[in-house]
Amino acid sequence: MLETRHAQHLSQLVGVQNFYTDPAHLQAYAYDATKERHMPDGVIFPRDEEDVRQILAYCNAHQIIIVPRGAGTGFTGGALSAHGGLVLSLEKHFDRILEIDTKNLIARVQPGVINKHFQNAVEALGLFYPPDPASQDQSTLGGNVSENAGGMRAAKYGITKDYVMALRAVLPNGDVIRAGKKTIKDVAGFNVAGILIASEGCLAVITELTLKLLAKPKLKQSAMGVFGSIGEAMEAVYKSMASGVTPVAMEFLDNLSIRAVEQRFAKGLPMDAGAILITQVDGSVPEQISWQLDQIEKHFKENGCIDFRIAQNSQQEEDLWFARRNASQSISVYGKKKLNEDVTVPRASLPALLEEVAKISQEYGLTIPCFGHTGDGNVHVNVMVQDPNDPSEMQRGQEAMEAIFKSAIALEGTLSGEHGIGLSKARFMPLAFSPEEMALFKRIKAAFDPNNILNPFKMGL
Amino acid sequence: MLETRHAQHLSQLVGVQNFYTDPAHLQAYAYDATKERHMPDGVIFPRDEEDVRQILAYCNAHQIIIVPRGAGTGFTGGALSAHGGLVLSLEKHFDRILEIDTKNLIARVQPGVINKHFQNAVEALGLFYPPDPASQDQSTLGGNVSENAGGMRAAKYGITKDYVMALRAVLPNGDVIRAGKKTIKDVAGFNVAGILIASEGCLAVITELTLKLLAKPKLKQSAMGVFGSIGEAMEAVYKSMASGVTPVAMEFLDNLSIRAVEQRFAKGLPMDAGAILITQVDGSVPEQISWQLDQIEKHFKENGCIDFRIAQNSQQEEDLWFARRNASQSISVYGKKKLNEDVTVPRASLPALLEEVAKISQEYGLTIPCFGHTGDGNVHVNVMVQDPNDPSEMQRGQEAMEAIFKSAIALEGTLSGEHGIGLSKARFMPLAFSPEEMALFKRIKAAFDPNNILNPFKMGL
Repeated sequence: MLETRHAQHLSQLVGVQNFYTDPAHLQAYAYDATKERHMPDGVIFPRDEEDVRQILAYCNAHQIIIVPRGAGTGFTGGALSAHGGLVLSLEKHFDRILEIDTKNLIARVQPGVINKHFQNAVEALGLFYPPDPASQDQSTLGGNVSENAGGMRAAKYGITKDYVMALRAVLPNGDVIRAGKKTIKDVAGFNVAGILIASEGCLAVITELTLKLLAKPKLKQSAMGVFGSIGEAMEAVYKSMASGVTPVAMEFLDNLSIRAVEQRFAKGLPMDAGAILITQVDGSVPEQISWQLDQIEKHFKENGCIDFRIAQNSQQEEDLWFARRNASQSISVYGKKKLNEDVTVPRASLPALLEEVAKISQEYGLTIPCFGHTGDGNVHVNVMVQDPNDPSEMQRGQEAMEAIFKSAIALEGTLSGEHGIGLSKARFMPLAFSPEEMALFKRIKAAFDPNNILNPFKMGL
Repeated sequence: MLETRHAQHLSQLVGVQNFYTDPAHLQAYAYDATKERHMPDGVIFPRDEEDVRQILAYCNAHQIIIVPRGAGTGFTGGALSAHGGLVLSLEKHFDRILEIDTKNLIARVQPGVINKHFQNAVEALGLFYPPDPASQDQSTLGGNVSENAGGMRAAKYGITKDYVMALRAVLPNGDVIRAGKKTIKDVAGFNVAGILIASEGCLAVITELTLKLLAKPKLKQSAMGVFGSIGEAMEAVYKSMASGVTPVAMEFLDNLSIRAVEQRFAKGLPMDAGAILITQVDGSVPEQISWQLDQIEKHFKENGCIDFRIAQNSQQEEDLWFARRNASQSISVYGKKKLNEDVTVPRASLPALLEEVAKISQEYGLTIPCFGHTGDGNVHVNVMVQDPNDPSEMQRGQEAMEAIFKSAIALEGTLSGEHGIGLSKARFMPLAFSPEEMALFKRIKAAFDPNNILNPFKMGL
């Protein structure tokens, strides 16, 4: 509970219309995509950087917890006030695109801009912002940076961190800092922008972002290959990529995911296939597109591809991608609740990971469909629970997921490719990091936030 | 001076052949490319990570300064033991390429591997490691990472930081840490690898690097354009790049640099040209190459290009690049000593920067030829001093350089695009960073190195 004097001070600071403590408003900031609920003690909407500065300095002095929040679309509880305190929301007053600089191919934005709005704005100028998390219609650029969001285009274009050139942020003590530059090359001082990316709101509140843009590729085309086994499909992926093709996306569905989509939508998918790969290439001239598709076809067919189709028009393009886009909702045929995690391993270790998942599925008696981004080894593993009200089945589900994390880490993978750690994966941190590494994280946290007011206890810190 | 007991302990630890305190040996580790000289108290060659661990833990306990060193090719004194202590050299026992993984397109290397050796090794397998600092024949990958080295290919392929996926390092207290992963996507924990890049050996000693590789582009071709003015040339650069062409390199020489090369080598260069642009494009199919060159030709000619030539064979390719490759040595026609710095501004601000440089040249009565990487706004600015033994001229040179830094920063540029801060630019740090930002750097330094034994006082810290 927030003391009345603090509530009064903060309310005066930003105005009553920008500070709420009533349950109805708080409810709207108590959720994210985890479906956990944590009521904050208040929600505050700073109007500008100076407000952020004053809020943080005040809360730091009075040891009031601050949880920064974008759109609340996170999958790991990063924006949840699980330990009370205030949600500091950037969605209301930090939603402007400040500058799109076509000469330097960069843009300056406020952190509350929705990813997709920004993509549309730059594409209208013939430019391109590649990071495309599945949440792009709702999630904010500030949230994307704080979680280092990925997406389907990562195989070719990388992830959010590859597009952050500079930022402004406010430290818990109220210090305003700038980090990075509008220049590709900048090696003066420590890479503070680099460490704020993916820091899940634990180190500072970002108030402005300078993002890198590309020219928009003129052409793109998609293709699909059907394989007898995941192993063959993965061999085809890495041989294609080593040949000089860097596909924009290289997505896969396993047999369970294929069957789920077919059961729901009857699209004529191959029910017996071990895997489907769906890929897209882009470029500037038709010959570059056809060369890439030729290479992919060759390496697919040399590695057990039994059916290869190239989309010849936008309808066929849509059709090819239908299965991938509808995989996530279709797998609900296997159970009422899915425990889904974005496990990532080095690309070539995907077959080994999926073998482990098959074993774990057997062992725990749970169906585990998988699909995702083979281009970067990022798999969405879905442990399906038939009845979430059965505590023993839920328990088995959690244990199966933990076994999957252990397998991924044994294969030199990571706890999270895209979603972050937040609350949901905090307890798994010791699986991935040594005590010395965790101690270093804590010292870094303290260098930014000595009073531990900013999103405390997240990431297992 | 190192106490005898410490010398004995360290000598015993690594063996007498790996620890020197005699002047002849020390001399060989007292220099770098700055031409400053600082004799260390000793030079030690750890044989493996365990040696690094023990050396650091011991020196940390006894407050002995450690200066990590690769090949000593740095331009800013990062590897110089300006405050005594030991040089810790990684060139002798850390020079192995541990793994080139063609499935995942990554390599694991020790930090002492020479950049060019590594490039050759991966190219023999049809792969590609883009970062190509001018020092590539001598400099080490560990040094490249510690300084975040750039190079000519940065406009298209980025810089060293874009290729570091993971690393192992030893903290001053002897803790061994791993940071990053072999996966494109990894968002678990703080981005410790990100902050070690460009940290100039101030935070930890890197003992292993996992680097990202690309497939080697099959085709490349170069072209040259002659312009009446720098302004026109820069307009041509940004219009080309906004059209969807991302050249591998887009290099320029100003009039003074052109005349210097011509005076030395009589290659028939246009002595009256305001600027020459030399560019290279690459790709997989001939049509992709010709489309890019067509776009560049169009945008060059629409912006005042008076002569445009495409290299049709390897001899012509060599000829086009001759002027750029020989600019650095040729400008010695203007003076015995050059004060050269790698100032970087946003691409579109290059004409404004070069106008400022022209004014500063007038004001201080010094010739200042410029050349460099327009694709990323990185200019090598060379303040030429006729007589380095004349203290007043040297003083004027230093003041001119300081005026140039101020101009660059006013244009949202950086103190250093490629060379780092080290000793040489330490005094300029307050021009670029606020007291709050400097204080944060110091807290980050202390989070890694509380006793300040690792390359202390560098970067103005």
